[in-house]
Amino acid sequence: MCLCWAFRSDTEQSGCQWAVSSLGVAHVADRGIRYLSKLCSKRYKCISQKLSEVSHDVALLEEVWSEKDYMKLKEKLASYYPHSHYFRSGVIGSGLCVFSKHPIIDTLLYQYSLNGYPFMLHHGDWFGGKSVGLVVLNLSGIIVNAYVTHLHAEYSREKDAYHPHRILQAWELGQFVRHTSQVADIVLLGGDLNMHPDDLGNRLLRSLTGLRDSFIEADSYEGPEGGCTSIPQNSFTSKHEFNSFPQGIRIDYILFKGSDKYSINCRALQTTQATDGREFPISDHEAVSATLQVQHGTTQRLLGGAEIGAIDVLNEARTELRVGLHVATGHQRGAGRLFGLSIALVLLSVAIALCGITSKALSFVFGAETLAEEGLPIVVLCLLGLGASLSALLAIAAYVLFTTEIKALRGAEDEMRRQTHTLQHALIHDKGRAMI
Amino acid sequence: MCLCWAFRSDTEQSGCQWAVSSLGVAHVADRGIRYLSKLCSKRYKCISQKLSEVSHDVALLEEVWSEKDYMKLKEKLASYYPHSHYFRSGVIGSGLCVFSKHPIIDTLLYQYSLNGYPFMLHHGDWFGGKSVGLVVLNLSGIIVNAYVTHLHAEYSREKDAYHPHRILQAWELGQFVRHTSQVADIVLLGGDLNMHPDDLGNRLLRSLTGLRDSFIEADSYEGPEGGCTSIPQNSFTSKHEFNSFPQGIRIDYILFKGSDKYSINCRALQTTQATDGREFPISDHEAVSATLQVQHGTTQRLLGGAEIGAIDVLNEARTELRVGLHVATGHQRGAGRLFGLSIALVLLSVAIALCGITSKALSFVFGAETLAEEGLPIVVLCLLGLGASLSALLAIAAYVLFTTEIKALRGAEDEMRRQTHTLQHALIHDKGRAMI
Repeated sequence: MCLCWAFRSDTEQSGCQWAVSSLGVAHVADRGIRYLSKLCSKRYKCISQKLSEVSHDVALLEEVWSEKDYMKLKEKLASYYPHSHYFRSGVIGSGLCVFSKHPIIDTLLYQYSLNGYPFMLHHGDWFGGKSVGLVVLNLSGIIVNAYVTHLHAEYSREKDAYHPHRILQAWELGQFVRHTSQVADIVLLGGDLNMHPDDLGNRLLRSLTGLRDSFIEADSYEGPEGGCTSIPQNSFTSKHEFNSFPQGIRIDYILFKGSDKYSINCRALQTTQATDGREFPISDHEAVSATLQVQHGTTQRLLGGAEIGAIDVLNEARTELRVGLHVATGHQRGAGRLFGLSIALVLLSVAIALCGITSKALSFVFGAETLAEEGLPIVVLCLLGLGASLSALLAIAAYVLFTTEIKALRGAEDEMRRQTHTLQHALIHDKGRAMI
Repeated sequence: MCLCWAFRSDTEQSGCQWAVSSLGVAHVADRGIRYLSKLCSKRYKCISQKLSEVSHDVALLEEVWSEKDYMKLKEKLASYYPHSHYFRSGVIGSGLCVFSKHPIIDTLLYQYSLNGYPFMLHHGDWFGGKSVGLVVLNLSGIIVNAYVTHLHAEYSREKDAYHPHRILQAWELGQFVRHTSQVADIVLLGGDLNMHPDDLGNRLLRSLTGLRDSFIEADSYEGPEGGCTSIPQNSFTSKHEFNSFPQGIRIDYILFKGSDKYSINCRALQTTQATDGREFPISDHEAVSATLQVQHGTTQRLLGGAEIGAIDVLNEARTELRVGLHVATGHQRGAGRLFGLSIALVLLSVAIALCGITSKALSFVFGAETLAEEGLPIVVLCLLGLGASLSALLAIAAYVLFTTEIKALRGAEDEMRRQTHTLQHALIHDKGRAMI
């Protein structure tokens, strides 16, 4: 789950050509949680060592949950990466940070509207404040918008209760990139998307933004088969994840695109392989590193075919959000019913107490006359009343939570519908022009 | 508190000149909350009537909390404003919506990181999911980014506990506008900012974005003295708000700016005056309406002096956020202490029960031996234990809440520091160039 991405620097300027760099994923200690993660401090040492050994332009890290660990990294890497930024959000934090050789001239954070549920404590994503962080870099005059993100984890591929949340996150990520990168010369996105290459969210993100996948486009590749970034050889991974995918899965990406001024291509891609000669891997995910070449030149806009593809993906995503809406509405109703039942129980307890039929009624229910005489029924009544009150409070909290979920899903579905109309309109307009 | 903004259409094209429109605030029923607000449905009728009578390009509305009311407005205004969008967020919603004569080609919503506290039920801002909504409009080829927003209310000017939250919202609003409007020809912002014209948040927003105030820039003005949008003559306002400001306050704005391609000026501004001949006002705030003229031509960038001003404002805002941080840290510690105390009480209750000294100890504490004998001490013990458990739960929730607040405030302060450095760097660079 835990990654750090590094944008490696072998920048060379020859005429108007730039061999920009590569993004290298160095694995951060398993989820990077102090005290809970295995070998946490040792792995952070390895990360700083790895990042200082290889010359990178930018390092994009995820799941650096502790700010103390970020501060230590910052201190150690100061001479290699003089510029850095830590993104704060949620309860634990976003876990996102960036180290750069080049000046960071601007930053912006966008927290996803949905990110799991607070009552799923054993998953804990909700507390992470999952977000997308943007740093605007000045690479000797080239404006690079580098985005780092980490989407909700997939705990079960067969019964993925968080799928609508991840689709919404992919949509919001795409929207954020699209709206904030309009004047960027180069756009880079690195992160743990928790989605397989052809998953709906991934297709949605790419069709929305026009971002290209470095693994698919790389001239040369070195690393695990199929570019897998979560592999069974890594001792920090859960082996049951690989029942259906024995060679591993690819869920960490480096995506990129150029602009009207610059075209960009991926020359090389590298992915680490578990320990890479060390005693232990530096994270549970493999590191990805890409060498990107930037040249003066324009990037083609979406063709008609691509727009049709985008419309199809949008329709598919809307269907998925509607499934999520259906489930959330059911949960909301359930919370409403629980509230009604709890209030009824509270009223019942009060009524029993007031009518003075306490001991008889409870001794009848519990079949324990002696206990009733000794006063336990009062305790039971108190417990019942308080338990029901607590249950009513929890029902209110759940109702609020599911209402927020419904609002966010409906909002995203509405935005998607508008985007579909805009693309359809553009398509008709293009066809009209072609016919003239 | 409740507004609707209308962007009035008297678009005329003469050569390369556009007399674009005006933004008119039509007051939505007091906070627009169904069943709770006075004359709610009648006032919505007046709003739709007003919006259909006057020719607007865009109507930006706030505090339309009920989607049903939005749907009714949409239905009634369909022939006048064929395009519309409702922004959904939070528990109740964002309350923001837009009606437009021109195609809405894109939308985006950004929910502020902080927006009051959920336990301040009587204020209720937290549940509103306060946000800034962006609609991208195509006005016959001119790309207009229109933003609609509603910031946290100011309940007490002297002891404003929400000031750091509003400063953070103003910062996030400015950042969002700056990052998403880079290719817009015209930028418009309408909303209830809940800030006086020279308040820190207002200065921060304007210096950050370069947005200009239509009231200050208008060639002609018609309405209450000083452009006040919350006036004592309005029967829905609380009179105590005007103790220090007998003529009213100006907290609702239409801000605008041009681009490299288009310059923009405010020709006229109108603000309603309470009832305006009707039986009742249509909202608790007055409506603002501006006529903006757009011409081909470039808009000047920030001068050195403006950058220095921006740095000063940023430093002032950072100080305010630090004050907020100090308070939030105190609250967080308080929640921690409450948790410790609650757990101690839970343990104490369990210990008393286990040691079998229940009745003696409690009869000693409560001085009620007879009651203890009758079994009430068990009830008291139960109540104590359960009350303490509930208190521990609440303390956890409060700790989580204040931790989130601290994270958001620190994040914003960090971003502001970076922005200060970038402006300082630009200033030095400009000076250096001037010296050459």
